[in-house]
Amino acid sequence: MKHIYSFAEGDKSMKDLLGGKGANLSEMTSLGLPVPFGFTITTETCNYYLEHSEYPSGYFDEFDAHLDELEHKMKKNFGDSRNPLLVSVRSGARVSMPGMMDTVLNLGLNDDTVQGLIEKTGNPRFSYDAYRRFVTMFGNVVLDVGHERFEHALEAAKTKKGIEDDTDMEAEDWKNLVLVFKQIIQEETGKDFPEDPREQLRLAVEAVFKSWNNKRAIAYRNMNNMPHNMGTAVNVQAMVFGNMGGNSGTGVAFTRNPSTGERAFYGEFLCNAQGEDVVAGIRTPQEISELRNVMPAIYDQLYEIQARLEKHYRDMQDIEFTIEKGKLYFLQTRTGKRTAKSAIKIAVEMVNEGMISKNEALMRIDPNKLNILLHPSIDPGAKKDCLAKGLPASPGAAAGKIVFTADEACHMIEEGEKVLLVRKETSPEDIHGMNVAEGILTATGGMTSHAAVVARGMGKPCIAGCKALIIDEEAKTLKIGDRTFGDGDLLTLDGSTGEIFAGEMPTVEPELFPEFDTIMSWADEVRRLQIRTNADTPHDAEVARRFGAEGIGLCRTEHMFFEEDRILNVRKMILARNADQRAEALEKLRPMQVEDFKGIFKVMDNLPVTVRLLDPPLHEFLPDTDEKMAPVAAELGVDVAELKEAVHALHEFNPMLGHRGCRLGITHPEIYEMQVRAIFEAAMAMKNEVKVKVEIEVPLTGHVNELKRVRAMIDQVAAETGAMKDGSSGFEWKVGTMIELPRACVTADEIAKHADFFSFGTNDLTQMTFGFSRDDAGSFLPYYTENEILADNPTETIDQEGVGQLMRMAVKLGRSTKPGLEVGICGEHGGEPRSVMFCHDIELDYVSCSPYRVPVARLAAAQAAL
Amino acid sequence: MKHIYSFAEGDKSMKDLLGGKGANLSEMTSLGLPVPFGFTITTETCNYYLEHSEYPSGYFDEFDAHLDELEHKMKKNFGDSRNPLLVSVRSGARVSMPGMMDTVLNLGLNDDTVQGLIEKTGNPRFSYDAYRRFVTMFGNVVLDVGHERFEHALEAAKTKKGIEDDTDMEAEDWKNLVLVFKQIIQEETGKDFPEDPREQLRLAVEAVFKSWNNKRAIAYRNMNNMPHNMGTAVNVQAMVFGNMGGNSGTGVAFTRNPSTGERAFYGEFLCNAQGEDVVAGIRTPQEISELRNVMPAIYDQLYEIQARLEKHYRDMQDIEFTIEKGKLYFLQTRTGKRTAKSAIKIAVEMVNEGMISKNEALMRIDPNKLNILLHPSIDPGAKKDCLAKGLPASPGAAAGKIVFTADEACHMIEEGEKVLLVRKETSPEDIHGMNVAEGILTATGGMTSHAAVVARGMGKPCIAGCKALIIDEEAKTLKIGDRTFGDGDLLTLDGSTGEIFAGEMPTVEPELFPEFDTIMSWADEVRRLQIRTNADTPHDAEVARRFGAEGIGLCRTEHMFFEEDRILNVRKMILARNADQRAEALEKLRPMQVEDFKGIFKVMDNLPVTVRLLDPPLHEFLPDTDEKMAPVAAELGVDVAELKEAVHALHEFNPMLGHRGCRLGITHPEIYEMQVRAIFEAAMAMKNEVKVKVEIEVPLTGHVNELKRVRAMIDQVAAETGAMKDGSSGFEWKVGTMIELPRACVTADEIAKHADFFSFGTNDLTQMTFGFSRDDAGSFLPYYTENEILADNPTETIDQEGVGQLMRMAVKLGRSTKPGLEVGICGEHGGEPRSVMFCHDIELDYVSCSPYRVPVARLAAAQAAL
Repeated sequence: MKHIYSFAEGDKSMKDLLGGKGANLSEMTSLGLPVPFGFTITTETCNYYLEHSEYPSGYFDEFDAHLDELEHKMKKNFGDSRNPLLVSVRSGARVSMPGMMDTVLNLGLNDDTVQGLIEKTGNPRFSYDAYRRFVTMFGNVVLDVGHERFEHALEAAKTKKGIEDDTDMEAEDWKNLVLVFKQIIQEETGKDFPEDPREQLRLAVEAVFKSWNNKRAIAYRNMNNMPHNMGTAVNVQAMVFGNMGGNSGTGVAFTRNPSTGERAFYGEFLCNAQGEDVVAGIRTPQEISELRNVMPAIYDQLYEIQARLEKHYRDMQDIEFTIEKGKLYFLQTRTGKRTAKSAIKIAVEMVNEGMISKNEALMRIDPNKLNILLHPSIDPGAKKDCLAKGLPASPGAAAGKIVFTADEACHMIEEGEKVLLVRKETSPEDIHGMNVAEGILTATGGMTSHAAVVARGMGKPCIAGCKALIIDEEAKTLKIGDRTFGDGDLLTLDGSTGEIFAGEMPTVEPELFPEFDTIMSWADEVRRLQIRTNADTPHDAEVARRFGAEGIGLCRTEHMFFEEDRILNVRKMILARNADQRAEALEKLRPMQVEDFKGIFKVMDNLPVTVRLLDPPLHEFLPDTDEKMAPVAAELGVDVAELKEAVHALHEFNPMLGHRGCRLGITHPEIYEMQVRAIFEAAMAMKNEVKVKVEIEVPLTGHVNELKRVRAMIDQVAAETGAMKDGSSGFEWKVGTMIELPRACVTADEIAKHADFFSFGTNDLTQMTFGFSRDDAGSFLPYYTENEILADNPTETIDQEGVGQLMRMAVKLGRSTKPGLEVGICGEHGGEPRSVMFCHDIELDYVSCSPYRVPVARLAAAQAAL
Repeated sequence: MKHIYSFAEGDKSMKDLLGGKGANLSEMTSLGLPVPFGFTITTETCNYYLEHSEYPSGYFDEFDAHLDELEHKMKKNFGDSRNPLLVSVRSGARVSMPGMMDTVLNLGLNDDTVQGLIEKTGNPRFSYDAYRRFVTMFGNVVLDVGHERFEHALEAAKTKKGIEDDTDMEAEDWKNLVLVFKQIIQEETGKDFPEDPREQLRLAVEAVFKSWNNKRAIAYRNMNNMPHNMGTAVNVQAMVFGNMGGNSGTGVAFTRNPSTGERAFYGEFLCNAQGEDVVAGIRTPQEISELRNVMPAIYDQLYEIQARLEKHYRDMQDIEFTIEKGKLYFLQTRTGKRTAKSAIKIAVEMVNEGMISKNEALMRIDPNKLNILLHPSIDPGAKKDCLAKGLPASPGAAAGKIVFTADEACHMIEEGEKVLLVRKETSPEDIHGMNVAEGILTATGGMTSHAAVVARGMGKPCIAGCKALIIDEEAKTLKIGDRTFGDGDLLTLDGSTGEIFAGEMPTVEPELFPEFDTIMSWADEVRRLQIRTNADTPHDAEVARRFGAEGIGLCRTEHMFFEEDRILNVRKMILARNADQRAEALEKLRPMQVEDFKGIFKVMDNLPVTVRLLDPPLHEFLPDTDEKMAPVAAELGVDVAELKEAVHALHEFNPMLGHRGCRLGITHPEIYEMQVRAIFEAAMAMKNEVKVKVEIEVPLTGHVNELKRVRAMIDQVAAETGAMKDGSSGFEWKVGTMIELPRACVTADEIAKHADFFSFGTNDLTQMTFGFSRDDAGSFLPYYTENEILADNPTETIDQEGVGQLMRMAVKLGRSTKPGLEVGICGEHGGEPRSVMFCHDIELDYVSCSPYRVPVARLAAAQAAL
């Protein structure tokens, strides 16, 4: 059995044996790239060593042979005081893992070989600096000496010398420090620092092996259900230095422009420098094209190879290189990170160049990033005064004067101001203010709080749950840290990052470009999932159609109830003392609802429109604080006491788990009856103008009998209004239900008997399945994701193991009753790429998301299909 | 094919064809009982008629033959003006169903035959009364004339005559009314009343057939998923009358005493009377033994037959009989209803008599009724002044002076008073008051509200959710209707019925008797399920052991936190500004917890004790109203503002779905750590005295990583305290989790990897699965059960289709990972018989219930096993 592979022997398929890093270095070498040579000790050797506490037979012979080969290739010798070979030692498991041993660089240095390095570089300061770094790293990661002792010694040396920066340390200073460091190691380990490079190397390799079983690594594997018997490989690679004189250098380059996507070799370099110097920013690098003048041959070689690399990897590459004494080395090539715009541009152009297929192009774009392209962003050049960071609840940037109430927002808008609405949390009563504000900022609530959901629907920037805010709504002040902002003060929000800035910052409007449309059209060609939108108004519906929506998957009727001209009648309906009063109030609401639906049907000509019957509990329509009682009572013409009593009677301990959804529709049938009548009347009125396809949706069904009962009422109203189920009355209609309770999932076979369609409400389903409310989970959910108790926040992406299991079950049971049952999703997850892919996998018919997420969903659906 | 069966031809096995009633009448006839003869038209005939709108061929010949046979048997002739045969016509489907046609009695009467009846009875008033009743019933149920018109006519006649009671109507009056009624029928139907008895009979039979497809019956079958093609049978039976003179009579008898269970023929009769007269209570019936004197031969026959009936049916019978002119007729025999006590006594005695087996005896007792035997009840003879009715939340009767706060309750008790605690709703802060009160009364909350759950645990009467109460806690008044009660006024509660009475009523203490123990020991012989109890204190644990509990399935540690000497430190812990302060407060709580556990371990020597780590959210431990803030703040030595802020910070929109259970234990690990340490320390301290078997239970696990994390902490504390998993430290311990979230059910295979046991928390599981909170469901759940949207209240009995499905899944998945996994249930359902049977079916290891429900669970478990 072979225990060690040189970089010339492996390739990228050998990850299990060589680890990720080893396989990658081998691949580059086999491409003929000038990679600093080295070898990889296999994961199997690690396992053997850990099991038997000794090396497998034949290991040492192999090791010596590989070290010889390395010396030969590099024309340097390990431990040679004139021409020393220095190496790096790195762990490399199949997948990278926290807790594993860090890198040791410059291994092979000792008091002798450092002289050789000085000779070769002509730079004693660099050489002793490299030496002391090696001793620190070796002491820390191999010999387990706490890094604090080394740092304290360095601090002491600087203090003694009266300097503050490491850059002011001179060769002699570093040299002295090496002695001090060795002394520390002696004190801490009771042994001298190993001067013999081979001894250093043996110890470093063993330290890597042992790190596989350290506490943190074991805990990580446990938490991620990874096996403990994979082992880690060890990479030993020759060091090269870019700071060995004028014919040395270092740089980073991209095969195309990562920011614009332009097809042009792009990058920068520094002569006589190390990679660290580029990062440290002490010297300003030169553009890569300059290299053509400085080292024309090297430039040509680099240019030729970068083109070859892009072709080999069939993607834009990010390349690190070092030039040591006129010789070019590649240290790394990897797929280059890029902006959303350049990702699209590069993908489309590569298809046009014949390099990749359309399908590959689609897979290359991160759907999450499309968002950025659809919303204004803060000018990257602007000076930023970041005050605090909240949750990036709805993307885009907006600046405006802050206001603390929805009414004030409307008032300011009338005076021509741009405003940001600042609230502890928003409620449906704030809709009119949210409608006119540029952006929304709240102190509480999560990614699926009211503010977040509504803002995303409106395509407005929103930062939610920013705990640093102390809002005093009465005093109209907003405190962030020690700064206080009042009514009318200017702030800027970046809803894509969650950052809040003082003052008004310049923003950049999104700019659409032809490649975007190209990608979208390719996506539409391959996807199977239909994409609908969540829209409550003709305007939202229109925006969504422009983004490619193929129907409305969720039209929430409660938002209609909050409009200023309606809320009074809604409240009258709630406070009605008898059926007549209630009927009267509802009779006033009906013509308004008819107009709502007519407007939406008109925009969605020939596309399905899913209308959800009233969902929230009635108390949401009544004032919730004492101050608000009096004006509302006056408007309604009732005593404040009476209103208070009504509010009190409707109070719920757990509103999420209360009297809402179809429960309300069943105990107060007249409300749903009015809504259904309005739907049919609107359809009748529009049927000659457009093709109406309406899907009436019953919310919060838990038991089949709930749906049965509401459906019987709908059929009754249909009979009364002449709406024929066979479409003969000139429009199509269906009746279905939200699936948003665990009970609905496990009894979906029964429920399907009475449903023409299902639509998953994964917001509620997630909350019920986990047993937490999104409004309250802020106290533990961030802790859970930070501490890897949950890999992801399930309110952001569908929890496939738990919630997803119930969804699978519901689809299977539902279609066991009705094979062709239409099933979709209209929860917030409908626009989140991983969730969209899951919805494709479990064979949903459509996903529905907020208008601005429609392009994201189109792309994600295409990727799912591929 | 045969379309009609005489009562001599059928038997009880022919329910499908003859309906329940027909099969039963046939069975009695075939036993040789003198049953008024008759025949049954089959369900198949009904189906044929409904399908073809005509009778099957041969039907009329059969019909005539059966009518001839009936006339022959009864020695009366249909339509004979001298000796008329009268019959009743009744529907009789396989199962009884609302909406089906009612009975028509006295069919065969007309102006001619009524004369024959007068002649036979010598009673014109009775005869015309029978006639007008027949016309009304026929008009109403056969001809579909609204009964109001008949009632109005009767009222008019009485008004005209100047009388109020029907009993003051004379023969002539009834005779006149028959004319009026026939006129009404003519007006309403446009046809004359059918005088021909055969025409009457044909119409009545067809009306029964048609009633199978009336709206109400169809709706009922739809709602109950019953097939529509069963059809109904029609029973035609000769009328007999007990009021035909001195040698006639009527009575009701039981083969044993239904109230005491005594083995003695028991009942009452009236001479020259109809069954209605016994019910109406106008005349006082005589004891059955008197019949021996009045009609000795009849008595002997009756006595002989009742003994035969009991033997045949092998159970105590409830018999209705009529004597018509010296001839005894049996109208009905059925299993007699009986008190809980007599049920047990009869069952045990019948086993001793060799009549039934032990297993049959066990199946004869309704476990629900055992409850009554274990609690005091209101003296049945007492005069009752019922004020209102709430939910029967915890059984038993109690009287006392009302108080409005827990503190006041304690204060009054010190003065030697008995008190009832009256609260809008109780919270854990009221525990000390609940502890000393005789009973608890609340205005809000359901069968599983805090008050209900705690009261049942304590075995104290409780009426919850009584909406009629208007409680003013400040003024200390309780308004019910127009009556107001103040501090110290006497009330009586009947927790078994939910009734609230004014004043102090005499109560009867439960009296245990030897047959109870016999039944319990038989139950223990056959049941497979283990029965544990929910108990938080040594006292409760002791009570439960006396009732036969085999362990503690749920020991809630939060109740311990509320005791007066602890709450201060709990609050200090919550308000701690840093880890040190928190540790200090917890350090003070630990020794107290150690004592708690020691006490429980001692009582539960050698039995398992499941200790649940802290479950409720922290805000439950802080004052919830402004008035309560100041004293608590003073006690804690903090500003009121600081306390308010803490309360505010911990406020939750949906506390059920908030920061509780293991979420709290994970974000505040020091709390669980203290509890676990206390458990191990208590076990160590007791291990030489008793055999400790403790099961540490993690609440509210939703994701396996939560359990993993808490378990790691427990293992750590175990290592620190020397608690060895192999029991070598002298006691046994396990770690497991509640299964109370839908997500835990669907991922139970993962969770089982880290759990030694599961325990279903079906209270929460039901709430999460349905998506409603028990505290808020009062606004729609009663409507749901009343309107048959839900067959049962799922907070009372497990919803087997929905919640039960998830439980099945969890058991299956859990045991797929760990074949022998111990699984129990500790929700409120654990003491509810149907739920216990379900738990047996899905192969749980144990059920756990409140101490007083333990006997109920033992019997239900035995029945499940049989």
